[in-house]
Amino acid sequence: MRHHVGIVGYRGYSGAELVSLLGRHPHAEPVLMEHRTDAGGESGLHSKHRPRQIAATGDAVRGEKIEIVFLATPAEVSMDLAPVMLAAGARVVDLSGAFRLRTPENYARWYHEPHTQPELLAEAVYGLPEFCRERIPKARLVANPGCYPTAANLALRPLIEAGAIDRSAGIVCDAKSGVSGAGRKPSLKTSFSEVTENFSTYSILNHRHVPEVLMVSGLEERELSFTAQLLPLDRGILETIYFRAANGAAAEQILAIYEKRYAAEPFLRIYKPSHAPDLHAVRRTNFCDIGVTLDTATGRAVVVSAIDNLTKGAAGQAVQNMNLMLGLAETEGLL
Amino acid sequence: MRHHVGIVGYRGYSGAELVSLLGRHPHAEPVLMEHRTDAGGESGLHSKHRPRQIAATGDAVRGEKIEIVFLATPAEVSMDLAPVMLAAGARVVDLSGAFRLRTPENYARWYHEPHTQPELLAEAVYGLPEFCRERIPKARLVANPGCYPTAANLALRPLIEAGAIDRSAGIVCDAKSGVSGAGRKPSLKTSFSEVTENFSTYSILNHRHVPEVLMVSGLEERELSFTAQLLPLDRGILETIYFRAANGAAAEQILAIYEKRYAAEPFLRIYKPSHAPDLHAVRRTNFCDIGVTLDTATGRAVVVSAIDNLTKGAAGQAVQNMNLMLGLAETEGLL
Amino acid sequence: MRHHVGIVGYRGYSGAELVSLLGRHPHAEPVLMEHRTDAGGESGLHSKHRPRQIAATGDAVRGEKIEIVFLATPAEVSMDLAPVMLAAGARVVDLSGAFRLRTPENYARWYHEPHTQPELLAEAVYGLPEFCRERIPKARLVANPGCYPTAANLALRPLIEAGAIDRSAGIVCDAKSGVSGAGRKPSLKTSFSEVTENFSTYSILNHRHVPEVLMVSGLEERELSFTAQLLPLDRGILETIYFRAANGAAAEQILAIYEKRYAAEPFLRIYKPSHAPDLHAVRRTNFCDIGVTLDTATGRAVVVSAIDNLTKGAAGQAVQNMNLMLGLAETEGLL
Amino acid sequence: MRHHVGIVGYRGYSGAELVSLLGRHPHAEPVLMEHRTDAGGESGLHSKHRPRQIAATGDAVRGEKIEIVFLATPAEVSMDLAPVMLAAGARVVDLSGAFRLRTPENYARWYHEPHTQPELLAEAVYGLPEFCRERIPKARLVANPGCYPTAANLALRPLIEAGAIDRSAGIVCDAKSGVSGAGRKPSLKTSFSEVTENFSTYSILNHRHVPEVLMVSGLEERELSFTAQLLPLDRGILETIYFRAANGAAAEQILAIYEKRYAAEPFLRIYKPSHAPDLHAVRRTNFCDIGVTLDTATGRAVVVSAIDNLTKGAAGQAVQNMNLMLGLAETEGLL
Repeated sequence: MRHHVGIVGYRGYSGAELVSLLGRHPHAEPVLMEHRTDAGGESGLHSKHRPRQIAATGDAVRGEKIEIVFLATPAEVSMDLAPVMLAAGARVVDLSGAFRLRTPENYARWYHEPHTQPELLAEAVYGLPEFCRERIPKARLVANPGCYPTAANLALRPLIEAGAIDRSAGIVCDAKSGVSGAGRKPSLKTSFSEVTENFSTYSILNHRHVPEVLMVSGLEERELSFTAQLLPLDRGILETIYFRAANGAAAEQILAIYEKRYAAEPFLRIYKPSHAPDLHAVRRTNFCDIGVTLDTATGRAVVVSAIDNLTKGAAGQAVQNMNLMLGLAETEGLL
Repeated sequence: MRHHVGIVGYRGYSGAELVSLLGRHPHAEPVLMEHRTDAGGESGLHSKHRPRQIAATGDAVRGEKIEIVFLATPAEVSMDLAPVMLAAGARVVDLSGAFRLRTPENYARWYHEPHTQPELLAEAVYGLPEFCRERIPKARLVANPGCYPTAANLALRPLIEAGAIDRSAGIVCDAKSGVSGAGRKPSLKTSFSEVTENFSTYSILNHRHVPEVLMVSGLEERELSFTAQLLPLDRGILETIYFRAANGAAAEQILAIYEKRYAAEPFLRIYKPSHAPDLHAVRRTNFCDIGVTLDTATGRAVVVSAIDNLTKGAAGQAVQNMNLMLGLAETEGLL
Repeated sequence: MRHHVGIVGYRGYSGAELVSLLGRHPHAEPVLMEHRTDAGGESGLHSKHRPRQIAATGDAVRGEKIEIVFLATPAEVSMDLAPVMLAAGARVVDLSGAFRLRTPENYARWYHEPHTQPELLAEAVYGLPEFCRERIPKARLVANPGCYPTAANLALRPLIEAGAIDRSAGIVCDAKSGVSGAGRKPSLKTSFSEVTENFSTYSILNHRHVPEVLMVSGLEERELSFTAQLLPLDRGILETIYFRAANGAAAEQILAIYEKRYAAEPFLRIYKPSHAPDLHAVRRTNFCDIGVTLDTATGRAVVVSAIDNLTKGAAGQAVQNMNLMLGLAETEGLL
Repeated sequence: MRHHVGIVGYRGYSGAELVSLLGRHPHAEPVLMEHRTDAGGESGLHSKHRPRQIAATGDAVRGEKIEIVFLATPAEVSMDLAPVMLAAGARVVDLSGAFRLRTPENYARWYHEPHTQPELLAEAVYGLPEFCRERIPKARLVANPGCYPTAANLALRPLIEAGAIDRSAGIVCDAKSGVSGAGRKPSLKTSFSEVTENFSTYSILNHRHVPEVLMVSGLEERELSFTAQLLPLDRGILETIYFRAANGAAAEQILAIYEKRYAAEPFLRIYKPSHAPDLHAVRRTNFCDIGVTLDTATGRAVVVSAIDNLTKGAAGQAVQNMNLMLGLAETEGLL
């Protein structure tokens, strides 16, 4: 038995990754859902084994008995489509930032536009399974986490909860992402000749993913310095996180916190002391890899957190959420 | 004494390269000429040592005593601006394809639009110094050659002239270019995530640079198979050229033809037998490097020709033409 | 039921790709086989889901009931290990060039060393399923094809068989490969700073893969001009093949030959007229994609053939051969 | 009049950059000095315009009247060669780490080998002209600064001197470098397929460049968290530096400190508030570009410092030092 699932925005990079992952999923039958905002050539879709295509409408959802619709669309499109899909009886996993924050006010502050669906915002469940696993199975609307916050929160929250960080000294999150994180729409900033042999910073201290990190980690805005940076590569996020360990903790103690918290997590891998992941280690996987280096004498600590921005940072995590929503094994189709 | 020279299209890659080359030229004083078609952020221009900026108008040309205007603009803009600049008393080096072919009919066939300046087309001098050096010093309008044809013609014409190629078997020119050759305007085809870790063909057998190769080399269209291809790198063109040597020639004889023809040329470098250039050898230089491999028993020959598409393939060759037009040493500012 | 299969050379790029493909294969249980020639860090192997490790010896083959051993080793190591593995009762898929050619003399000419296992060479079955499918199921020793020859022969042989090529004019195969094709041993030629923003030719007219192309396609050496070239990317092979069509054939007729010949082939995809594959289309797949462009008036034809050098060009094809040897569906674990 | 200058280690990346810069320098006549530790193919050196080659011996220094010898060699080779060159009457600019630190003990701690020339270590002048300009003109032995410390110290020292940093909260320097910084010797870590589409950390908290940062900036070891990281590109260093501003300083005040300190410096460029440099801005230049972002309410500050590791981080700064040593204009050959 295969569950019918629809993908809106399948031409974008996250959407195309969903098509690829769901095409190999043993219990899903993906369908491409065409929406007027889609444009441009297709990515990674060939005639052999290409899923069927329907309209991104409520009628199509009912007609095709779509159980879950993935919205790999900009936030403003997701705010338009989510109520339509829900009204037609589908459940929704939204990959945009539309339903991640808790209040319309916070959304308006960071996304610079009013939120048009405050009731759905209130209903939406934040889809980071490692910390929100209980509510996801029955959720109608799951807000799939942002790529940067996924890597940051999986690294920060266990330490914050354990009181292992001296928050008074501030936490630095120096984040680097591949270009696919900026989406598929052509722009000068993501043109090949501008990016190759280059490295640049953007949204220093004011990236729209900051409130998601604060919301999940429990940090205050004044405690966190976050910088986003563009790597000359296609996919992957690596965050180098700096803090001062509380109470003279040693690296082994920090690692022990992670190992205990993530012992049962299938997608978290903790490295041996003084080892750190790189982007090849997580490429095209749903893993989040974490390594710790700490100078015990001074308490200076460096945590490295790495994911694939299109997998654990987007489509892979969306499939992980789908598995939970459909009562399947959480790792189905993802190992 | 510095000659005042203007650059239209200075934000594009060829234009920015002109700004860079002319900024270090001992006898030129470059001026940026602003034109409404210019758009987007700037490339490689910083506040220190940035040239002055004027309008791309006849009045500005007269007011600033501009002697030569470089048009690093699309062909249709060059057809508009060239007569204006000439009427204002400047001479013009046009880097577009507007004035390279001999007839309006041929232009219309390959550029898919009518030519609006047939008299200027008739007057224009093709600016490949190695083969057209005599007419350039007195030319009012120089058509700077295309990037692909420069590499192809410097490799092919000496052998065609010497009768060293068995033309009945056909000549293959398999051409590869870096992304900057496609210009700076954002497009999906030149987006980083589409290009990195990719390699693709385009304009197979019908690239608009084909008629330039035929015009200069003397080949017939049916004799030449030309394919353009996109390399995942910023700058450089390498063409692998295949033919059958006439009359059982050996590699040494082919090399001897090149060495004799190019003995006095400052920008041509011929490699030892069985050695071939790569793109690093010519990067950010005005050299055209050529290597020959030949199987004497069968006559199968491979010539490799490499240039930097923004230097010898565009801005560098334009400065070489300027040097000739101004009576300067041809290599001034280019070594 | 899972078949026990061993991988020697699992730290190299082809070997690591085998570990990855076989780790997801529903009917295979991969085991890493340690051999003294292995060296250097590991690639893409993490502690979670890592296969067991045994010695690359006959005893281990018997003890672990290994049915098939993959040799992802240099040719000289494969000549040493293949008889050992066969004597221990395993069947062998060898990914090196050791057993691909038909005679020890031809091997010595192209590999510059004597062949030490002439009887095994005589017994070995060339593992290009699309043309040698009948003998593979019962073969003890399968010689997995080279990467360049796979792309070339899948493009050339149907046309040669159909008499669609005017062989008197010669055939050009301009081949480009990603860096992983050169193996994982560090060398200056494959160092990052030498390769990035570069493109270079090598083994012009005398690459050791030439005899494999001749052997399978049926061409004579004097008819084929083959050049290997290094792309600044990790994985992928694209070959641009030029010839003159026999008897004024049109592109549609060339396509019809491919479509008929490959109608039942699961891993061949033929493009519409004037469309051509790029490397992204085949990346991390076992497909060989083929496109045709032809100028009917002159008969100049260009065929583009693309594969992933580590998949259809190495590990994927090896798994395809394993599937045939074990009586499994040929596409098992490969779609 | 051209000064004769010798380059040992001209095949490495810093050495080849010296050959390139000095080849265009109006007052220098570079000579290649062959040393047995040199190996491997050459980089960027072609037969046209190639400098002469001599032995790296004292006799050759005397015979060729070499005034300055650049040692672009490993530290242990520099310790051997520096006394030889000095004894022969040349002055030395050493690009290795051999003579940068103040004591043999500190050298032994960070370089894990004893220092064999403690007297020369005591005599050596640290060659960061922006802070050590006075002693360089008369120095016999100049220790050219490391690449990471150059970018870090030019950003940090003016702020430390001005008391603009709350040092109690610690300073984070998240540093990223292109691959050429690792030198030209082949290794798995710098192989193309390992680096492309990858990003990795190394030497977290214990990079050998840390003591240079401490020595020049005046920070204590416990105050600085420094991580080195490898970018998938050839050349460039970008450091993202985080700290808390002292006394509620605003971004404008931080900028004012830089602008005042660097007003007369030809190679320092300070960006407007909230603007930051990228690597293209400094590529193949001797500039160090600095940008500042600061949240006044909380004092969280981010300074971005960018250089080309082979120019201002190595060969360019070495030529800047040579200009000072020879009494030439400091920018000669560098703009």
